[in-house]
Amino acid sequence: MLITLTTDFGLDDAFVGIMKGVIARIAPQARVIDLTHGIPAQDIMAGALSLRHSIAYFPPGTIHVAVIDPGVGSERRSLLIASNDAYFIGPDNGVLSLAVGESPNLVIELANPEYQLQPTSGTFHGRDIFAPAAAHLSRGVSPAAFGENLDSFVKLTPPKVIRTQNSLTGAVIYIDKFGNLFTNIERRDLTGFTPQTLNIVLGDLTIPGIAENYAGASAGGIVAVVNSWGLLEIAANQGHAANRTGAKVGDSVNIIFRTDRSGGQS
Amino acid sequence: MLITLTTDFGLDDAFVGIMKGVIARIAPQARVIDLTHGIPAQDIMAGALSLRHSIAYFPPGTIHVAVIDPGVGSERRSLLIASNDAYFIGPDNGVLSLAVGESPNLVIELANPEYQLQPTSGTFHGRDIFAPAAAHLSRGVSPAAFGENLDSFVKLTPPKVIRTQNSLTGAVIYIDKFGNLFTNIERRDLTGFTPQTLNIVLGDLTIPGIAENYAGASAGGIVAVVNSWGLLEIAANQGHAANRTGAKVGDSVNIIFRTDRSGGQS
Amino acid sequence: MLITLTTDFGLDDAFVGIMKGVIARIAPQARVIDLTHGIPAQDIMAGALSLRHSIAYFPPGTIHVAVIDPGVGSERRSLLIASNDAYFIGPDNGVLSLAVGESPNLVIELANPEYQLQPTSGTFHGRDIFAPAAAHLSRGVSPAAFGENLDSFVKLTPPKVIRTQNSLTGAVIYIDKFGNLFTNIERRDLTGFTPQTLNIVLGDLTIPGIAENYAGASAGGIVAVVNSWGLLEIAANQGHAANRTGAKVGDSVNIIFRTDRSGGQS
Repeated sequence: MLITLTTDFGLDDAFVGIMKGVIARIAPQARVIDLTHGIPAQDIMAGALSLRHSIAYFPPGTIHVAVIDPGVGSERRSLLIASNDAYFIGPDNGVLSLAVGESPNLVIELANPEYQLQPTSGTFHGRDIFAPAAAHLSRGVSPAAFGENLDSFVKLTPPKVIRTQNSLTGAVIYIDKFGNLFTNIERRDLTGFTPQTLNIVLGDLTIPGIAENYAGASAGGIVAVVNSWGLLEIAANQGHAANRTGAKVGDSVNIIFRTDRSGGQS
Repeated sequence: MLITLTTDFGLDDAFVGIMKGVIARIAPQARVIDLTHGIPAQDIMAGALSLRHSIAYFPPGTIHVAVIDPGVGSERRSLLIASNDAYFIGPDNGVLSLAVGESPNLVIELANPEYQLQPTSGTFHGRDIFAPAAAHLSRGVSPAAFGENLDSFVKLTPPKVIRTQNSLTGAVIYIDKFGNLFTNIERRDLTGFTPQTLNIVLGDLTIPGIAENYAGASAGGIVAVVNSWGLLEIAANQGHAANRTGAKVGDSVNIIFRTDRSGGQS
Repeated sequence: MLITLTTDFGLDDAFVGIMKGVIARIAPQARVIDLTHGIPAQDIMAGALSLRHSIAYFPPGTIHVAVIDPGVGSERRSLLIASNDAYFIGPDNGVLSLAVGESPNLVIELANPEYQLQPTSGTFHGRDIFAPAAAHLSRGVSPAAFGENLDSFVKLTPPKVIRTQNSLTGAVIYIDKFGNLFTNIERRDLTGFTPQTLNIVLGDLTIPGIAENYAGASAGGIVAVVNSWGLLEIAANQGHAANRTGAKVGDSVNIIFRTDRSGGQS
């Protein structure tokens, strides 16, 4: 059984290694894949987006553990959710919510101390609650054994795309290590439009059309593409768009439907 | 058989991957877990502490390899130590000493060239000596086959906690990636005291009481907790205590036993 | 079957984790080792060198995937190469060329859509083409099934060492995380010379002789060694030579054959 880990712990400390030790003690046969441990500290939305856009690439039945957990040790609940042919384990703060969708099959509160390291610490539930839950689940413990069903859980609300007659307004929601600017504008939002007939506007910058790949601009040039997450992305070919443009998460991105092909600078 | 790796190599170069290749050649069935490769360069104490506080979470018989090795290629010896139901492999510079305790069962010098890559380089014993030793040990080679027993080995001496009639004096010994300040004051040092009746003093800062978790302070506020390593920690709730306070490893931390509950600022 | 991954993706995003998910779906039994994901963005030469100097440490038959791919989605081809008792998968931009040597056994263009995720994105062939190819190959798919044989592929040309009657001129080609300066001068270039009778010159700095290991200089001192890749390296013992000297990749390094042992400062 496969377990993935997504955290904001980084890899400079032993915390992620310790979680893997806990899993290996309980479930020696479990395989663990790091999705990423580089989520910005306490950035629940970045964790939720990373998980959301990764799960389709894993085998059915994979157990995804996500620990971006600024409220560790406080009253926030711990969750096990079954949805989309996979399991999700993490704090009830929204980090799982974009991946599990609106109506998961099952939402359980992780409460059974039998499947936790005791005594649980107040600062590291990744070690004491979430890793043990994943390991026990991978060994065949029934979800119902972990705790009671819950009627609701915390859901994030990413910014929505606003459509007018001749434009879409979205926002930068994620910036990757290459400085590529991921927006919340999805491929399906662009259905019916010819990519070349759109102008993409970010601050002072207007990008004419959506290219097939980064080579749609010359080296260093700014280009818009639909990226590997199916999202409109603004990138600098062989460069760093975030540094070039100064854009940050939350900045608006507008798409203007042009009625001609004369380009956006006219 | 499980092997863990702890180094200061970072992950930007291929060195850690090369060590795993060496292990895979010798012991294809061995499983490898990275404890961390982010120990600050040549910081033997940080490596020793990370190993010390991680080993309890791994299965019995785990082989822990730690390579923080500023003296690589010089006269310092290479060690295999059996202790605490685990094996430890690394240079004889103290990096293993906090994990193995005062009186390990067995201390062997890794000297048998049959279990080393030959010729060994002068700069990368992780590849040429330590990874091969772990791999051969995991395949069942007897510890005695690696070399002679040693009577002593290099031991680190972490700062001691000093107790007076109404105070404890300890020090910051580790800072994690969240900027949390780990001290050498252990949970047992606090036995008999009510957490709320203590003042924790770091430089100009006085923190009244020890909280259960980070939410013991409002967002951004400074809080003291007993952390997941069982150590007194000074943290900023959802913030970075090291940046906030300017504290560094080695800085003193005092605990004052208050005789009332009026708080530390009075 | 063992698969290694080398990229410039870093570990802060989920991209590497996604590639491992793709592999796990197709080839659940495949083992994956990260060589490194810290190659500087779009630095094909650094990726090629890292791969070149790592492959000897992996088991025969290992499948090495290298994705440093500034031209992703453009006309550049995708390759599967068999050479040196291993397989190599990546873009046709030179990143594989130093590892596979001058005359590989087999060079195939990865073109068969049956072994790709469809539709392939224009921005992430690591996920859509290279990881699937490695996974299918590890399951026993014949190299010929992936596409047609190619007569040629892109080869990098690292700087050459120039030899005169009493000197060698090489260059810094790689700098590791410790700040050690790797040159293109190999151990064999030094055959016939006594290490102590050479002066190594980098900018204003003259280093007398080649030491056995870093302890050949006092702490902080600059020392020349033949390193674990078999290359002449300029290092600072327990320090950071790149910061100390300001040297960069491409800087010249000269070796002067001295006719006496009076040292280089005379």
